[in-house]
Amino acid sequence: MLWAREPEVAEAVNEQHENPMFLDGFQLAAGLQATTSLPDALDGAEAVVMAVPSPYFRSVFREVAVLLDPTTPVISLVKGIEPGTCMRMTEVVADESDHDPSLVGVLSGPNLAREVMSGQPAASVIALADDGWARSLQVRLTSQTFRVYTNPDVIGCEISGAVKNVIAIAAGIADGLGFGINTKAALITRGLAELTRLGTSIGGQALTFLGLAGNGDLVATCTSPNSRNHRVGVELAMGRSTQAIVDGMHMVAEGIKATPGVLALAERANVEMPIVREVSAVIEGRSSAVDAVDRLMGREPRGELDGVRARR
Amino acid sequence: MLWAREPEVAEAVNEQHENPMFLDGFQLAAGLQATTSLPDALDGAEAVVMAVPSPYFRSVFREVAVLLDPTTPVISLVKGIEPGTCMRMTEVVADESDHDPSLVGVLSGPNLAREVMSGQPAASVIALADDGWARSLQVRLTSQTFRVYTNPDVIGCEISGAVKNVIAIAAGIADGLGFGINTKAALITRGLAELTRLGTSIGGQALTFLGLAGNGDLVATCTSPNSRNHRVGVELAMGRSTQAIVDGMHMVAEGIKATPGVLALAERANVEMPIVREVSAVIEGRSSAVDAVDRLMGREPRGELDGVRARR
Repeated sequence: MLWAREPEVAEAVNEQHENPMFLDGFQLAAGLQATTSLPDALDGAEAVVMAVPSPYFRSVFREVAVLLDPTTPVISLVKGIEPGTCMRMTEVVADESDHDPSLVGVLSGPNLAREVMSGQPAASVIALADDGWARSLQVRLTSQTFRVYTNPDVIGCEISGAVKNVIAIAAGIADGLGFGINTKAALITRGLAELTRLGTSIGGQALTFLGLAGNGDLVATCTSPNSRNHRVGVELAMGRSTQAIVDGMHMVAEGIKATPGVLALAERANVEMPIVREVSAVIEGRSSAVDAVDRLMGREPRGELDGVRARR
Repeated sequence: MLWAREPEVAEAVNEQHENPMFLDGFQLAAGLQATTSLPDALDGAEAVVMAVPSPYFRSVFREVAVLLDPTTPVISLVKGIEPGTCMRMTEVVADESDHDPSLVGVLSGPNLAREVMSGQPAASVIALADDGWARSLQVRLTSQTFRVYTNPDVIGCEISGAVKNVIAIAAGIADGLGFGINTKAALITRGLAELTRLGTSIGGQALTFLGLAGNGDLVATCTSPNSRNHRVGVELAMGRSTQAIVDGMHMVAEGIKATPGVLALAERANVEMPIVREVSAVIEGRSSAVDAVDRLMGREPRGELDGVRARR
């Protein structure tokens, strides 16, 4: 049972088994129903999957929480942090309900919706502390083209989604400056190091960042040629201002919105994120892309794993 | 001081400051000299960097070893294992000399030579147990366009180079079957899990695989559209036989040669490497690419980090 805000979405799902507004051209499962009523959607729910964008997640979940038994698992698909509070969605759930924390988790990975719907092989990870529920959801969500792994580390799997779009802007800048495979692979890997430093400082496990929600989603986002974040980076490298770039797009690229929040989290955790910092400087017009690259390459010598806390 | 097997290479380096046979079109440093004499090359050497392909590494190093003080660091650039013995190059060094093991290491990372020579930003990792020498070499090898990190884990940094080309064939197969970003990112990430399982089983540290020699080089190899391994995968997906593919290429793709050795290492270490196993089945004509994908997607449910030994 799908809950939709827009009546026309619910109607199209129920009557044509399609979602023309958000996923045009694909046939949905015949058994899928939709409603605009939260009480109807949640009636008898064994588990709840939240796919509400981060700015609206709290207000919708507040309505969900009063209708829900606190022993019902809540899984977030949202890759981002709440504007203002810099909270992850599972933190918002904890903030707004008495849910058992072991029943609040995420499903995350390199899962572009159109490719999943096309039946291309994809993999994802369900992160939930309760092992019984994690395995149960793993089996229910797995199909011959969508393979789900488990990982008990919710924080590690959740934090990557907020940072990856910022690194994707850096990858776009590298492409815009005419750099090739070496530079892209170094940016992804050192971006992953920043992500791992941040994630382990707030309680995530370092090895999670090797996985599908960490490295997998980062690789997908940084190598996807059609992503808005990539385009922003390419245009920043060409010297265009962020305002001019945003004015030319229908939607603001997630990475532009995420950068201040990620920097705030890094400062709060006292973690170095040099790539994120340079992306921020270029976005805000405080530096050219070329100067940002020079500063990154001219940093003092380091160990590869400096600042990563291994606790597993 | 460069040692070259071919007199014409030594001559071109000394007289034109070029290496037309292996790196056409680039000007080499004016101070670089070359010789075909090992005693001349090693006379007064503070450190030795070995860049001899794996099948010939042992025979050349045997000649090097008798000329070398055992306190001189030896760094391997070779990404592969010795045919027959399945040894890493640092194992061959240990086998053929009394070198202090803390002075034998590798330099590895996403470092396509032509991009490095073009001055594009690149990063690499020097792995050597002796911290003083590691830092000294780090500083000497770093430039404004080539950034070197340190990592004490030689085994972890070295093993990746042998496995990455096999995963690159799998990535080529995925492209050849028409799959997109999700599939590629999942293959890279689950390939990295196989690499990490193998590496930690032979003494490598799990977090090394997050780094430049692990994930960085794997991402570069799997996303490089011009690599021979990728082309092999694409053609295997189209149903061509390995023999027909090899006959059409000037050189055998590294991944084809590496697959039996990697499987042998995995069996010896009792480690599961399902992607490598399926690549082997397709290379040997025992399975179609489509059936291999189906078997990978139909495996029993797993945890993301199953089989990874964390010791750091």
